[in-house]
Amino acid sequence: MADINVGLFGLGVVGEGIVKVISNAKNANAEIKRICVKDSSKKRNVELKPGMITQQREDIFNDPEINLIVEVINDPDAAYEIVSEALKKGLSVVSGSKTMIARHLPELIELQRKHGASLLYDASSCGSIPVIRNLEEYYDNDLLLEVKGILNGSSNFILSRVFDHNENYENALQTAIDLGFAETDPSFDIEGFDSLYKLIIITVHALGVYVKPSDIFTYGITHISDFDINFAKEKRVKIKLVAQVVKISESRFTMFVMPEFVPKSRYIYSVDDEYNGVVIRGECYDRQFMFGKGAGSLPTASSILSDVVAHHHGYKYGYKKMGYKDTPVYTTDVLLKVYVRFSDTPIPDLLPFHSILERYSSQTLNYVVGEIKLKDLIECDKILRNPDVFVINIPRFFEDN
Amino acid sequence: MADINVGLFGLGVVGEGIVKVISNAKNANAEIKRICVKDSSKKRNVELKPGMITQQREDIFNDPEINLIVEVINDPDAAYEIVSEALKKGLSVVSGSKTMIARHLPELIELQRKHGASLLYDASSCGSIPVIRNLEEYYDNDLLLEVKGILNGSSNFILSRVFDHNENYENALQTAIDLGFAETDPSFDIEGFDSLYKLIIITVHALGVYVKPSDIFTYGITHISDFDINFAKEKRVKIKLVAQVVKISESRFTMFVMPEFVPKSRYIYSVDDEYNGVVIRGECYDRQFMFGKGAGSLPTASSILSDVVAHHHGYKYGYKKMGYKDTPVYTTDVLLKVYVRFSDTPIPDLLPFHSILERYSSQTLNYVVGEIKLKDLIECDKILRNPDVFVINIPRFFEDN
Repeated sequence: MADINVGLFGLGVVGEGIVKVISNAKNANAEIKRICVKDSSKKRNVELKPGMITQQREDIFNDPEINLIVEVINDPDAAYEIVSEALKKGLSVVSGSKTMIARHLPELIELQRKHGASLLYDASSCGSIPVIRNLEEYYDNDLLLEVKGILNGSSNFILSRVFDHNENYENALQTAIDLGFAETDPSFDIEGFDSLYKLIIITVHALGVYVKPSDIFTYGITHISDFDINFAKEKRVKIKLVAQVVKISESRFTMFVMPEFVPKSRYIYSVDDEYNGVVIRGECYDRQFMFGKGAGSLPTASSILSDVVAHHHGYKYGYKKMGYKDTPVYTTDVLLKVYVRFSDTPIPDLLPFHSILERYSSQTLNYVVGEIKLKDLIECDKILRNPDVFVINIPRFFEDN
Repeated sequence: MADINVGLFGLGVVGEGIVKVISNAKNANAEIKRICVKDSSKKRNVELKPGMITQQREDIFNDPEINLIVEVINDPDAAYEIVSEALKKGLSVVSGSKTMIARHLPELIELQRKHGASLLYDASSCGSIPVIRNLEEYYDNDLLLEVKGILNGSSNFILSRVFDHNENYENALQTAIDLGFAETDPSFDIEGFDSLYKLIIITVHALGVYVKPSDIFTYGITHISDFDINFAKEKRVKIKLVAQVVKISESRFTMFVMPEFVPKSRYIYSVDDEYNGVVIRGECYDRQFMFGKGAGSLPTASSILSDVVAHHHGYKYGYKKMGYKDTPVYTTDVLLKVYVRFSDTPIPDLLPFHSILERYSSQTLNYVVGEIKLKDLIECDKILRNPDVFVINIPRFFEDN
């Protein structure tokens, strides 16, 4: 019998990848014992031993031979039920459910502490790129200043089609869905929520602070127009959907997800198609860049395998930074420089700009470039979601280039 | 008193960086207690408490409060003496001495096992990029196929000056030395030995196999000429000094360090100046890319700090892959495609090419492009070091592009 007997929840694209990867990993000493699915009559694309599939959670939880739960289901509420039940029973879990983890991380940390079981979830953020474990272990010191990156493959794929292949936004979105680069609900990706949840998890391991999803400005790419794309092309920059957490002083940090103008000199400029790229900036090492496939069946499954093996070697997240003296405090009281394009919505009257640096108007479209506080963007969130409005961050370095 | 009381060996560029970084790391709970140097009268660029410096190793080894040795000296023989003495006393060590580690890794692993002390050396390979720890822990499975990269900052800096700034080789070398990008002896970098030692360490953690330095083909950039550079520019590729370890089948792998033609489509094409970049290729995740500052005082010191903190949390390298069933076997019986430029040395007569694909001759310079076994390159090593000869690897993908 294998050392690790896995009870798997979920047999979608990622679940099937896990079955393939684990059965081929001859040195992992792991085996999938039972798989719990929503619909056991569905046809599967992997070979399974008879009787492996069940619709009853108890068939997994009551099997004394199963010593590790792997959870990769799409429904965050059901995932939370399963993962908390496992942890309460002292069973350790490897999970890929970013939404569930980002929403419930404080409770999940508490459950791990109370019941001595562990929860690993490197696959939840940037698929095969080992961001979480490196932030927890390797960048486990006071030098870290910023983590910034393209965390969502499908929105990035769409933006790449638009920029490099001159496709229009609607076609690009359809291609992404057709090729399987978009998640179940495309709005989850293109509205920035996928990036947001990953950013929340990253921030816990980067700075030791948990921030609730509802407290973070999250603005996707749904309203992007040809006008914005041409504007960016004229300036020789790309528009990317960027998630970032940045220390703005010794004691404060900010975080948000929004489109950003990215000049060629930046590492993330070259992160195209369905790829993810993360820049880790620190006091001594300047910028480090990690790049790879962020999603997809096998890349995510390979990351799950890494966590399965790490668990077997006794690895747990220490959440060490949460215990540091003077963990920095989250603030939205920071000045951003933004481009806001609009037609009917009277943006300059409605948004409390600190200063307006540029104005452009024509018979159809207008834009302003101005400085505004992040907290005021959050206040005006509803206005920014009018269909004629689109906001793009202009990071400070943009001025220097 | 701090939890970690460090005895530091070496106060060169990296040693001084370590003093700065550790004294600023408020959550690391580490303190440097004593520093052993070769010449205690030398002026230092960091502030030190009186009495910290000594020339006597025993002042560190006999201090009962010191519970961790950090070793960053330049002399590999002295480094080996110090590190083995420490391990034998049960004292754990963090080291940055790649030459020493690459030469003595089997003995050092044995000493760790025998005496229960641990040796961490992530700083020895690619400075601030966490390559070793990720190979050991995260890519700890059967999926890994290849690790390939630019591991030496100074030779890469020189090649960047030559390619992007049209400097000649001699000027570029001098600039590298002037800016401090070259190590004590520049031949160590430009002849490929720095890359070789890093590659040996990487291979132990990537595939679980130790290969002696003398068994590995190592060919630097000393003989590069304007002719080679123009040849590369005409083909729109760069010449980079590349170190690689590649699985060529389930049971066999090869490794070598040599200049390579790199087309624009490859990640390492954009690794310029003093930067390092490593591509990790695996069965499920395709290619992942890690990029950052590979050397320098503070980047290396930040990596040392990561190891110091990891040691404090009980981390040790498990050398797990060395215990895997069917670890792959090192072979040099593989066919490479190479470009060999020459003037007087009759290369086509002397080298046992499997096939010659292209020939060029002129009144001054000639080249051939041919297929040859790696073991025959090793056999003909002396010929290849004639001053009129220069060899460049043409990786298989080069044909595809």
